[in-house]
Amino acid sequence: MTEPSSLSRRRFLQTAGAGAATAVWIPKGVKGYTAAEMRSAATGGRVELGISKWELDTPALCVDLDKLERNMATLGTALARTGIDSRPHAKTHKCPAIAHMQMAQGAVGICTAKVSEAVAMHENGIEQILLTTINATPHKIRRAMELRTRCDGFIQAVDVAENARDLSDAATAASIVADVAIDVDPGGHRTGVPPGEPALELARLVDRLPGLRLRGLLCYDGGSQHVKGFDKRRAQTLGRLAAGADTCERMKRAGLNTEIFSGGGTGTYNIDHETPGLTDVQVGSYVFMDAQYLVIGGAEGDGERYTDFDPSLTILTTVLSAKFDGMATADAGAKSCTINEPDPVVVGETGISYRARSDEFGTIRYENPSRTYKLGDKLELIVPHCDPTVNLYDQMYAIRDDRVVAVWPITARGMSQ
Amino acid sequence: MTEPSSLSRRRFLQTAGAGAATAVWIPKGVKGYTAAEMRSAATGGRVELGISKWELDTPALCVDLDKLERNMATLGTALARTGIDSRPHAKTHKCPAIAHMQMAQGAVGICTAKVSEAVAMHENGIEQILLTTINATPHKIRRAMELRTRCDGFIQAVDVAENARDLSDAATAASIVADVAIDVDPGGHRTGVPPGEPALELARLVDRLPGLRLRGLLCYDGGSQHVKGFDKRRAQTLGRLAAGADTCERMKRAGLNTEIFSGGGTGTYNIDHETPGLTDVQVGSYVFMDAQYLVIGGAEGDGERYTDFDPSLTILTTVLSAKFDGMATADAGAKSCTINEPDPVVVGETGISYRARSDEFGTIRYENPSRTYKLGDKLELIVPHCDPTVNLYDQMYAIRDDRVVAVWPITARGMSQ
Repeated sequence: MTEPSSLSRRRFLQTAGAGAATAVWIPKGVKGYTAAEMRSAATGGRVELGISKWELDTPALCVDLDKLERNMATLGTALARTGIDSRPHAKTHKCPAIAHMQMAQGAVGICTAKVSEAVAMHENGIEQILLTTINATPHKIRRAMELRTRCDGFIQAVDVAENARDLSDAATAASIVADVAIDVDPGGHRTGVPPGEPALELARLVDRLPGLRLRGLLCYDGGSQHVKGFDKRRAQTLGRLAAGADTCERMKRAGLNTEIFSGGGTGTYNIDHETPGLTDVQVGSYVFMDAQYLVIGGAEGDGERYTDFDPSLTILTTVLSAKFDGMATADAGAKSCTINEPDPVVVGETGISYRARSDEFGTIRYENPSRTYKLGDKLELIVPHCDPTVNLYDQMYAIRDDRVVAVWPITARGMSQ
Repeated sequence: MTEPSSLSRRRFLQTAGAGAATAVWIPKGVKGYTAAEMRSAATGGRVELGISKWELDTPALCVDLDKLERNMATLGTALARTGIDSRPHAKTHKCPAIAHMQMAQGAVGICTAKVSEAVAMHENGIEQILLTTINATPHKIRRAMELRTRCDGFIQAVDVAENARDLSDAATAASIVADVAIDVDPGGHRTGVPPGEPALELARLVDRLPGLRLRGLLCYDGGSQHVKGFDKRRAQTLGRLAAGADTCERMKRAGLNTEIFSGGGTGTYNIDHETPGLTDVQVGSYVFMDAQYLVIGGAEGDGERYTDFDPSLTILTTVLSAKFDGMATADAGAKSCTINEPDPVVVGETGISYRARSDEFGTIRYENPSRTYKLGDKLELIVPHCDPTVNLYDQMYAIRDDRVVAVWPITARGMSQ
């Protein structure tokens, strides 16, 4: 990226980070925090509710509630127009408080990437869970069946016959019938059964197996989410989901259950309804946004900026060294921001770059700054990539009008099993 | 990196990962685990001590005790020859069990990067702690003074006069005298006071301030640790530490305390004694090694491979998808490995690459494989960069002869404050 466009990008991101009008829509979830959540406020390092976020020890992960709620409202409004549902992905936030907000806003369920995440969400009151990854080992299958025993709304992915048989055997042994959805590969070859006949064959097998109940299919096209430019992204994702849609249609004609056809994400939430048969979008990042999504371009505007959602998730960092010309060092490094690209963006500033490539420290470089920073000053960063960044923290501070109103445990942090 | 050298590198790393003769040296720390450590074995996901590591739910972070102990013995032997001490950096392992092993082996103390890490280490029985980063805010200064009140062996870095005065005031207010070391910049301009007169002036100020006790200086040259080729690395680090050594000498002549002159790391542990006055090395990665360090070249050998220490730290991962030609998908992605480079290395295999760029999944690609993998198979990975990888896990499994002999809490995980 050349210097001018980098500056222009940062200027945009700064604008994107600035507050718009306060949202009036307040989801139910925000009004009552669990005892555990309130407890963590008392034990989480001298944090008192109501203090200014600038009083927080840093690095601190913050989520602005006005922006978070506005993002949820934006999604809700868009989906209401298109007639499909949301099934937000909890791999992004790993936070039951946010999952409850999503459910309160009408999500049909939440997704999780790993069975450990699913268990954590269920233990914290989420009853509708779609696990989008298969359980490949006896240990994970046992865990999934135990969860299914306690949770009627738990559905798990399957993408290969041998695994379907293992699941059915385990379900039968546990005296349950387990709900499954066929994971169809949109072409990335990462996971999923190939669409068409292989997927149909697997669906027929699932439908026959005594321990399983077929609920439909999923087809998550991760590779299209960050394609830059709305038209290009639309063309790519519709193209890649076409075989999945055809598979869904063929399943339907074969009398197989397709009540769920789940796919899509934050980059395609306003495109996915064009895929015939698709029932719900697995949006994740829309709640937080990040530097990666902010530059993919939206349906409106200049095609470069993605302004549909506001960056609600930020990291507060403190300047540790300001002795040298043209630069400063702050306390949020790779262990606080990840080393994903693009770099973190300093909110409210232009002409400053922030690099978090060092484990413990971030480097501020002044190009054309509006000000310079001194020892102890604090800065606020938009994160490079929200999912792995959230996964570094035990808790996030819920902020309204720059004050801490809750401390939310990131309950499923580190749960990659 | 071209294909052949990439393969050759992997072949080397595989060899590096293979077991050598069992070490006879057993540090005290291994013999007794704390109650908390044993508890975590009972609660940490059905792990029973004595089970094969291949039974662990994945992704799982493992440390091979024979290799870990051999690495510690190698360091001990080398330092005994050169007459300097070790002050290992806990930012690498964040694990009190390993810190205790290091102390049992004769380390003069441990280093931490953040005050929260220092508190965690002290709460778990470590009494000699050098905090290598300054405390820039009133909150952190208060925490540091509280720690100093309880911990006689706590020393903190200072690199600017205003901060020294704040520390002195806080110490006086707490009715203590706080131990500090001057952090001298080796030229990276990340933190530290410039060497020479600015450092001397700060040392004189610290020496005068009523709340502080000057203990010496530190000069950590992170930029030299990964320089490829031993001779080049030696020349660079000795050059960059020369001004620090001169500062130390001038402090000595001025009657200032230089009982501590701490610096160096895993890449320069056998060079640092050549810096006049240096008392101890802040080695971190030597306990674990990682793909980044394995390719820097050692004092002996072909200049490309660094075989002084064995890669003891690995991640176990399970194959989730093996349907597509030439590739497979496993369950350790960026949330389990970080996206640091070089890529994770598959132990015991050649002709296979492993990329963990996706949050939840790793991609195996076959180039010239010794075998292919099927669903549910497990692989073992050498991590790209040990410090931020360890920071993703709540616990590591201590392994001997492929069996789990302890579950070690990574107590300071996520403590970047």
